[in-house]
Amino acid sequence: MASDFDPMAVKAMVFDTFGTVVDWRGSIIAEGETYWKPQRGVDIDWAAFADAWRGKYGPSMNKVRTGELPWTKLDDLHRMALDENLAEFNVISLSEADKQQLNLVWHRLNAWPDAPSGLARLKSRYVIGPLSNGNLSLLTEMAKFAGLPWDCILGCDLFQHYKPDPESYLGAVAILGLEPGQVMMTAAHTGDLEAARKLGLRTAYVHRPLESGPGRERPRPADGDFDVVADDFRDMAAKLGL
Amino acid sequence: MASDFDPMAVKAMVFDTFGTVVDWRGSIIAEGETYWKPQRGVDIDWAAFADAWRGKYGPSMNKVRTGELPWTKLDDLHRMALDENLAEFNVISLSEADKQQLNLVWHRLNAWPDAPSGLARLKSRYVIGPLSNGNLSLLTEMAKFAGLPWDCILGCDLFQHYKPDPESYLGAVAILGLEPGQVMMTAAHTGDLEAARKLGLRTAYVHRPLESGPGRERPRPADGDFDVVADDFRDMAAKLGL
Repeated sequence: MASDFDPMAVKAMVFDTFGTVVDWRGSIIAEGETYWKPQRGVDIDWAAFADAWRGKYGPSMNKVRTGELPWTKLDDLHRMALDENLAEFNVISLSEADKQQLNLVWHRLNAWPDAPSGLARLKSRYVIGPLSNGNLSLLTEMAKFAGLPWDCILGCDLFQHYKPDPESYLGAVAILGLEPGQVMMTAAHTGDLEAARKLGLRTAYVHRPLESGPGRERPRPADGDFDVVADDFRDMAAKLGL
Repeated sequence: MASDFDPMAVKAMVFDTFGTVVDWRGSIIAEGETYWKPQRGVDIDWAAFADAWRGKYGPSMNKVRTGELPWTKLDDLHRMALDENLAEFNVISLSEADKQQLNLVWHRLNAWPDAPSGLARLKSRYVIGPLSNGNLSLLTEMAKFAGLPWDCILGCDLFQHYKPDPESYLGAVAILGLEPGQVMMTAAHTGDLEAARKLGLRTAYVHRPLESGPGRERPRPADGDFDVVADDFRDMAAKLGL
């Protein structure tokens, strides 16, 4: 851990979710291969479809962050991207009800195997909740689906600002009734952590080498790069003395 | 149950908390008698103190609802009322740190005995969360303290409107991504339910005869007065087929 870091000064841990807590890519591929391909005839490369869908995520949020779009919740950005994706993959067989159901696959993502038990250990000392670009209803349904033991749900729709806008991190700190140094942002993505650190939050990195699929691993930061650098949430709990 | 009510059309149940889920009066008396009186020398009638504190609740929220005060979260209204209460009870011995700690007794309220297990049964079908005049951080800490298995926390600070302002109920419906008829307001107070019903929400009444203390029971509504009328949350789960 970083030498100036006191785990007992932290009161709440807030978590990025997509890639950090849940395996969005593996989950979309699995639902595609086990349901949409055999039962609904969507015979495409589901890994490529998941990657292309996720690839539209950052650009679509940037349209909101720059003001090109008014506030639009992530469910609706996902739907706009899904419609483009279906056209690009030449999928023309789905009904409107099918498309609505497929779009909600983002509510049905599986946790990384260490997440439910690791989060439960972190919850024994800290208030824990997602601080995700997902909307509150998406994150609430995801938690029920994946068995995530959150204390509260902080979706960016509460603040009407997507990360890394400062309003999202500072909005979470304010609604928790805390100071920035009492809140630890947790993510598998260094940019998310660096944005939080600039605002005075503490930072915890968790390594998720398989987020983007096999053969696409990102480098693991050095141990001192963030307040905590851990291999998974059980390792993070152990490093925090839990 | 009301004859036009379909439990399967409901997706989320939202709950009043003070008096409905937790026993604010008994909890404040217990903390007063076991801590503040013997250890901090506050030798007063703690039942009378709790009643007087709670008695300032409605009037202080009304100052916000009418615009006399700007948006002020419940923790801060509780503190203003506490300072008045301490003067009225002639308590002059407490430090500022003591007062801050005492004010947070509203974060440390005990659940009615049926609440944790009854809510867990309701959670098996519905998204469950408080829709309380308490702020999100108060409700989050209360849930950890009392063992309440919420899926998400909806405090009125998210909407900056106290119940029974329509913005609070409709704000909850919107953030859940649902229609009013898919959300059931649950409370031990008929006024809360009637305000929600006017906006199209479903309603569930739970009887809490001891909320105001022995000898101060309110009448129990008739079975058809709300969509569900139950004696406690286990009875409510049974009436909903859970």
